[in-house]
Amino acid sequence: MKVTALIMAGGKGERFWPRSRVNLPKQFLSLTDDGKTMIQLTVERISPIVDIEDVYIATNKNYKELVMQQLPGIPEQNILCEPIGRNTAPCIGLGAVHVASKYDDAVMIVLPSDHLIKNNEIFVDTFKEACEVAIKGENLVTVGITPNYPETGYGYVKYDESKKDGNAREVEKFVEKPDLETAKSYLADGSYLWNSGMFTWKISTILDCFKKYMPSTYEGLLKIKESIGTESEDAVLEAEFPNLESQSVDYGIMEKAENIFILPGNFGWDDVGSWLAVGRIKKNDENNNVINGNVVAVNTKDCVIEGSDKLIATVGLRDIIVVDTQDAILISTKENAGEIKQVLANLREGGKENYL
Amino acid sequence: MKVTALIMAGGKGERFWPRSRVNLPKQFLSLTDDGKTMIQLTVERISPIVDIEDVYIATNKNYKELVMQQLPGIPEQNILCEPIGRNTAPCIGLGAVHVASKYDDAVMIVLPSDHLIKNNEIFVDTFKEACEVAIKGENLVTVGITPNYPETGYGYVKYDESKKDGNAREVEKFVEKPDLETAKSYLADGSYLWNSGMFTWKISTILDCFKKYMPSTYEGLLKIKESIGTESEDAVLEAEFPNLESQSVDYGIMEKAENIFILPGNFGWDDVGSWLAVGRIKKNDENNNVINGNVVAVNTKDCVIEGSDKLIATVGLRDIIVVDTQDAILISTKENAGEIKQVLANLREGGKENYL
Repeated sequence: MKVTALIMAGGKGERFWPRSRVNLPKQFLSLTDDGKTMIQLTVERISPIVDIEDVYIATNKNYKELVMQQLPGIPEQNILCEPIGRNTAPCIGLGAVHVASKYDDAVMIVLPSDHLIKNNEIFVDTFKEACEVAIKGENLVTVGITPNYPETGYGYVKYDESKKDGNAREVEKFVEKPDLETAKSYLADGSYLWNSGMFTWKISTILDCFKKYMPSTYEGLLKIKESIGTESEDAVLEAEFPNLESQSVDYGIMEKAENIFILPGNFGWDDVGSWLAVGRIKKNDENNNVINGNVVAVNTKDCVIEGSDKLIATVGLRDIIVVDTQDAILISTKENAGEIKQVLANLREGGKENYL
Repeated sequence: MKVTALIMAGGKGERFWPRSRVNLPKQFLSLTDDGKTMIQLTVERISPIVDIEDVYIATNKNYKELVMQQLPGIPEQNILCEPIGRNTAPCIGLGAVHVASKYDDAVMIVLPSDHLIKNNEIFVDTFKEACEVAIKGENLVTVGITPNYPETGYGYVKYDESKKDGNAREVEKFVEKPDLETAKSYLADGSYLWNSGMFTWKISTILDCFKKYMPSTYEGLLKIKESIGTESEDAVLEAEFPNLESQSVDYGIMEKAENIFILPGNFGWDDVGSWLAVGRIKKNDENNNVINGNVVAVNTKDCVIEGSDKLIATVGLRDIIVVDTQDAILISTKENAGEIKQVLANLREGGKENYL
């Protein structure tokens, strides 16, 4: 059976401000030493199992040009522009009906566009197995990350160790982001994986799930499907998509469906959630700094300094993130990096939208 | 008797990098909220007792243009350009022979160009009294600052409380920068003042001191004096000045001379020794930050942020100094601000002299 991929690339990635901007979110940035952008790496990673003409990008109109520039091999009709963000369920549904209009049935791998993977071979092997599990029944397959600390920022998936098929385990339940104590108990339990938002299923399986668990969304998706390739395609999408229920696929389908399997993803996963991640990903110097650009660092340790042309001189810094761009520079402690969103709020309130 | 002033403006002021540069040292910068430069404030402060045509600026060729721009009222012949820096004794000697070539005798007030004074009225009153003490005998008068903490970065002057004349006390001795224990004992003793480098004396008195304590320097100064106003003035200065002994007036004269008096200067003195001083001088906000420029500060306290056009966003910072200029930005802890000189050394070594 044909294997296709839907790469979700509509996110704003605000936590990488000032490099990420409204018009250049995180998935279109290079945050690694190889110079490739996150979405380029994502498409390249999946290329051993998905032909480029079967890769679909779900994004929005503002980013279509960026996708075409960064991924010239992707057919333009595979760039799906959501008129408005409606969370992951409608996004996946849109991808599914596009694939359904091309193939009678096919496997669809769903991937975020802004995660990093250390070992691409293991990644590919994992998704090969996910495809097998998806093909052999009406199964929804997710890939979970083996947790190595009690993270409270991710959802978890509990599996049933007694119901195994190869590396796949049957999922017992999806759980929301836990508090620290709960997260610790999940880690101790050993049968919980991080919900990574990566899925594999047949188009027929996921559309059946929409029909069963999100029937009104399914109706809308069918109308969109009928319009694909016709003159009214854009108009129908504009009319129908905003009416679809804004819902995550986790809540809308995964938490309700049966036949859900999970594969542990032990391929070195990083969701690159903030500038802190760059300290983990990029090459560190002898003072545990990640430094790029025109920088003179004196008595500076454990810092991330992403410079540009301007000379940045640092003295005595510890655990500080510095990100310079042409019109804005961010200086944040690592500890408070999450408060960057407050900077963006202040810019909005202060009429400085040009920096967003 | 005529009162003149010699303002010493040849310093490099490296500790205010990146605002201060080789071609724009601290005395030519505005570090206060009023927008006036340090040297402009110095000349303005002394104006109630010294006519502008009797103000002399000792500097070097590179800064002559800056002096003329910032102080258009000063006669060009009063801008004395040292061919090379030879410390304060030759500098003061050069000023003295220039005044001597204009007036038979006069009082000369010697002032650094880069200190700040809170109360200008008390400052003027102090120097009025200094002039009186200088005129009434062959006295060398210095103004000392009442210490309010055991600073180890300044020299001290010990006076003899029993030998008073108005507010002036006879100086017992000049002492070098002390260690902390010694500084504490000076503070406890109560008869030590900080050596501020501000002096008042008659031209005849100081030239007699040069003759007595620095005779070879005196010979050179006489040759320079004879050339003033002649065609060979520049050539003689170029030939003689570099041969003068490089020596501070404190060591060369004050520590050896008699008839030295000191006046306590209680006018709110700050030598603005580093960016730390800006936190003391400028207006603080409710989080004890001094912020200028295009800045969004989130959860930021006790910082000095001197911005320019570029947006500076800070998150979670404490006790950090940020100074942005067109081509360079400094980010330093307050604690390590003294290590800025290491930045400059690294720039020199790294062939980045254009940033100096």
